[in-house]
Amino acid sequence: MITFQDTLTIINREIQSIEYPQNPAGLYEPAAYLLAMKGKKIRPALTLLSCNLYRENVEKALNPALAWEIFHNFTLMHDDVMDKADIRRDQPTVHKKWNENTAILSGDAMLILSYKYMAKSPLQKLNPLLDLFSQTAAEICEGQQYDMEFEKRLEVTEDEYINMIRLKTAVMLGACLKTGAIIGEANENDQQNLYDFGIHLGIAFQIKDDILDVYGNQDVFGKKIGGDILCNKKTFLLIKALETANNEDKSELLRWIQTDTQSEEKIEAVRQLYNKLGIKDLAFHAMEDYYEKAKTALQAVSVEEERKNTLMSLAMDLMEREN
Amino acid sequence: MITFQDTLTIINREIQSIEYPQNPAGLYEPAAYLLAMKGKKIRPALTLLSCNLYRENVEKALNPALAWEIFHNFTLMHDDVMDKADIRRDQPTVHKKWNENTAILSGDAMLILSYKYMAKSPLQKLNPLLDLFSQTAAEICEGQQYDMEFEKRLEVTEDEYINMIRLKTAVMLGACLKTGAIIGEANENDQQNLYDFGIHLGIAFQIKDDILDVYGNQDVFGKKIGGDILCNKKTFLLIKALETANNEDKSELLRWIQTDTQSEEKIEAVRQLYNKLGIKDLAFHAMEDYYEKAKTALQAVSVEEERKNTLMSLAMDLMEREN
Repeated sequence: MITFQDTLTIINREIQSIEYPQNPAGLYEPAAYLLAMKGKKIRPALTLLSCNLYRENVEKALNPALAWEIFHNFTLMHDDVMDKADIRRDQPTVHKKWNENTAILSGDAMLILSYKYMAKSPLQKLNPLLDLFSQTAAEICEGQQYDMEFEKRLEVTEDEYINMIRLKTAVMLGACLKTGAIIGEANENDQQNLYDFGIHLGIAFQIKDDILDVYGNQDVFGKKIGGDILCNKKTFLLIKALETANNEDKSELLRWIQTDTQSEEKIEAVRQLYNKLGIKDLAFHAMEDYYEKAKTALQAVSVEEERKNTLMSLAMDLMEREN
Repeated sequence: MITFQDTLTIINREIQSIEYPQNPAGLYEPAAYLLAMKGKKIRPALTLLSCNLYRENVEKALNPALAWEIFHNFTLMHDDVMDKADIRRDQPTVHKKWNENTAILSGDAMLILSYKYMAKSPLQKLNPLLDLFSQTAAEICEGQQYDMEFEKRLEVTEDEYINMIRLKTAVMLGACLKTGAIIGEANENDQQNLYDFGIHLGIAFQIKDDILDVYGNQDVFGKKIGGDILCNKKTFLLIKALETANNEDKSELLRWIQTDTQSEEKIEAVRQLYNKLGIKDLAFHAMEDYYEKAKTALQAVSVEEERKNTLMSLAMDLMEREN
């Protein structure tokens, strides 16, 4: 059995072994820059750990795991352009360090590179793996599209929001786990349960992210605290606040999210309203609900409980993380 | 044997049969918009015609052909953002009709869709086809990167330029032809010769494009005449002009390409310099040289000459086109 730490070692080694063409440097340097950043590497870890439920040797899952990590970083590169985000993991984003065109084109090259690695999967698994990869990739684009559309809307329902984060965040975790299960030759039930584990975990993970944006510790968070508030992102917290506020509080909240001010005052005012409305607890309970569903799905996977310990404790760490 | 017109009918039918998800419309409408534009559809035609050299029934080449057409349109969508081009095939580009974020994200979705279609190839051909697709896709990004870098440089050598257009334009034509050959079960020699036919044809095609930008007829060209001159694109014509001009003419040319004026006066001044230097003939001869090489490569393909007529006359049409 491999540990989460083992998967990190393996993935970092694999990332370092990627052979980019030497030229044009302007195309490949930004990809290497982003991939070399310290990150949680959760997605490839999920692929390896899921495969490891079924077989000791996870060698065959390495290329698909790397494909997911490269794909994830491609989405970060393009999302940062679309969201005009300047900082990622405490460092300047690619379009800030270089420029927008570089971020667009290097992102494209990363998406292509991710398919290159996924296509190195064992031939007899290639069809289901590529179907899953393309289907999930398309859904992630759909999630980003909804996310951008929601920024222009004043109100978004909780259901719409959960569907958006399912697409934007959760399906990738589910697909990473299913990828490992397919390579590990898990039966279809297990594949589905691992996928569902990822979906629920991903939704809980994103609600945690929404909480950290408002209540996180700037020193460890890695992104600007209050960033979601400043760009009027329809987070779980904002949606629940608009849903539960009385008329007066709702008016104040709407007034704030209709201003484009980039001030700390706005962050503090919205945070105070959240505090008044008990939104942090509400969000925390929603996160817990999805976390419970995730655990139930993992429990239904037909391998010895002991083998699931690493995935189970990884899930717990994600719920308790501060960044 | 199928005709070029047959391939157009087939491809247009296939494009119309693409089933986009209904939602989010904002993600898929721009893709459908671009794909529905009148275009030459040369790339999928090359795949079908190349396959048709070896087998009457080109059914198995349909999905890969469509993959190439979708991929080509993905590159157009992103290139138009990077090049800030407003008009494509006489209609507003996606980032003009919608916005930049839409063009980035819909382009991503198209790239993913192109892989979806390529992955529908027969399993026993999937590895070589995906290798070719990803390798070529990466090269096309490299070509675009060089193209953008060259815009910031004052001088570019002819060799650098030919390498850039080989990557940006020619490898796709070569790969489309090789795709059809692989599906048609051509031997490796034929695969290579068809690839080379595409490379030389693609370079000739791009030089023709450079000529049309300066000497084309606005009513049929579809893009703005002189567009390359206005954005100081290092075309074959400009490179040869800088190479052959005397000091005085070169200074004048350099002065023009260092101004950012968007005036007709600039277009006319550069055109006059080209005329004085005989650049049109020079470019025409270079185009003819590559066209001859293309024909030689096609002649080396080991099928009856008669079967190659459609590809041969398609090549001729491309050299004589006015748009």
